[in-house]
Amino acid sequence: MIQKLISKIKVTNAPIVVGLDPMLNYIPEHIQKKAFAEYGETLEGAAEAIWQFNKEIVDHVYDLIPAVKPQIAMYEQFGVPGVAAYKKTVDYCKSKDLVVIGDVKRGDIGSTSAAYAVGHLGRVQVGNTRLSPFDEDFATVNPYLGSDGIKPFLDVCREEKKGIFILVKTSNPSSGEFQDRLVDGRPLYELVGEKVAEWGASCMGDDYSYVGAVVGATYPEMGKVLRKVMPKSFILVPGYGAQGGKGADLVHFFNEDGLGAIVNSSRGIIAAYKQEAYASFGPEKFGEASRAAVKDMVTDISQALAARG
Amino acid sequence: MIQKLISKIKVTNAPIVVGLDPMLNYIPEHIQKKAFAEYGETLEGAAEAIWQFNKEIVDHVYDLIPAVKPQIAMYEQFGVPGVAAYKKTVDYCKSKDLVVIGDVKRGDIGSTSAAYAVGHLGRVQVGNTRLSPFDEDFATVNPYLGSDGIKPFLDVCREEKKGIFILVKTSNPSSGEFQDRLVDGRPLYELVGEKVAEWGASCMGDDYSYVGAVVGATYPEMGKVLRKVMPKSFILVPGYGAQGGKGADLVHFFNEDGLGAIVNSSRGIIAAYKQEAYASFGPEKFGEASRAAVKDMVTDISQALAARG
Repeated sequence: MIQKLISKIKVTNAPIVVGLDPMLNYIPEHIQKKAFAEYGETLEGAAEAIWQFNKEIVDHVYDLIPAVKPQIAMYEQFGVPGVAAYKKTVDYCKSKDLVVIGDVKRGDIGSTSAAYAVGHLGRVQVGNTRLSPFDEDFATVNPYLGSDGIKPFLDVCREEKKGIFILVKTSNPSSGEFQDRLVDGRPLYELVGEKVAEWGASCMGDDYSYVGAVVGATYPEMGKVLRKVMPKSFILVPGYGAQGGKGADLVHFFNEDGLGAIVNSSRGIIAAYKQEAYASFGPEKFGEASRAAVKDMVTDISQALAARG
Repeated sequence: MIQKLISKIKVTNAPIVVGLDPMLNYIPEHIQKKAFAEYGETLEGAAEAIWQFNKEIVDHVYDLIPAVKPQIAMYEQFGVPGVAAYKKTVDYCKSKDLVVIGDVKRGDIGSTSAAYAVGHLGRVQVGNTRLSPFDEDFATVNPYLGSDGIKPFLDVCREEKKGIFILVKTSNPSSGEFQDRLVDGRPLYELVGEKVAEWGASCMGDDYSYVGAVVGATYPEMGKVLRKVMPKSFILVPGYGAQGGKGADLVHFFNEDGLGAIVNSSRGIIAAYKQEAYASFGPEKFGEASRAAVKDMVTDISQALAARG
């Protein structure tokens, strides 16, 4: 799947991923109204609204981008119907040939970690049948529990040719509370980065590993260091746009080959119609606003990469 | 909810929690067969099997224990139908007046963390209606992302009088890879424990905080230290039984008042009929085997607490 991600990045010339994190307050009123008219103000109604919203955005951007990253929390908050909308979104994006990164940030140990791994990336045994429950292409994973939490994912990645992105340095203001603490003179996130490189060595594609890392756009200097610590790992970079990261901050997340990073924007794309720059589209044409925002993001990042020479 | 947990511990005289982590290979054949006959070897069939298995165990133990801890990974591995079985299990346990600790180990930032918090412990706004999606009483949370990941949970805990258990020192062999690394001469888990105490101070019940910690039974010496670092926090202790922890290892997790800890056993209880000690019950009477195993666990822990004098 890392090969598919790379080939799609090359074809689209867009090392970006659109975060499908549908908060209800991003969703235009006409979509909410229609969903509530059909299902009431229920969890089913909310799930229908986010599904219709996602579908229209995907229909407007799928040909421009290699991948999407649905954030499962935004679905899980609507209970079982929300989780069903997550699955519907994953399936729809795959039918559009998009690479799907499930932003699930799961992390547990042993058989429990294995359950998450087969549930999201692999196949689960039911009687004599093997079934693919959520079937994303990649998943994000939390490293706090150590190798016991990661290894079951590596086993599934090798078997299914799928991948993971391990949280190394997150984009939020308080990420330093634990991640930046010095261990033998070096920050914890560097140690985690070294483990990512080690785990990744056992799951290699042609040039890059199936095992990537999450490093926030909001910490470009740390990204520069981590790029060298994990040369064979793709870095999934959140924090572009709404969280403050800019194209010029991102160049050091990429390798010399122009690959090795994929930059996520969520709100900046899916709620583009709410921004001044795209307000002229209006809420009815929110999908077109998202398409314009994707094009602008691709230009911003391409120019920054070109400018580094 | 911490008050309810404490009062139920006092009434049952059992500081224990039964982990409802239903792997299919724990489930007696007659239950699997019946579920597959009705739903086929499908995700729905697996979900029906784990639900029927859970129900029978809960029916046999609910009067002996204060709380249950369903591990959501074991449900999520069966996709959307599995998550529906998780919700059914949560609701059923609450109808039996059990405190439900959702072992979800979620952890994210900002609005995403808030989505997990309202989804599992709070209420989500849909139009003019507020709905309770999963509605567990407690949830487990991963601290790697720092305060930004925890604070949205604290807000919900205060509003709903619910609680969280934050991973501090996990029970698995590799938990030390990051958690034990020394920061200014002290292990990282101690720093996390200090933050738990700090976060917990803003969410106090009568004597204990709504904010607890997870510390593995397999690390009793660390439990002793952490008990003092977080005197007002309940410690949820996994790793008893199958993972190797014994009653005598657990006494230092408790405060002098005999409270402050709740010990989890999963496999040791729910798959008791597969152990030699309870094999005479046979797979048909697996619920009775679980009941016997709960009684033995309560005795083991009570004796250990009495022996410390």
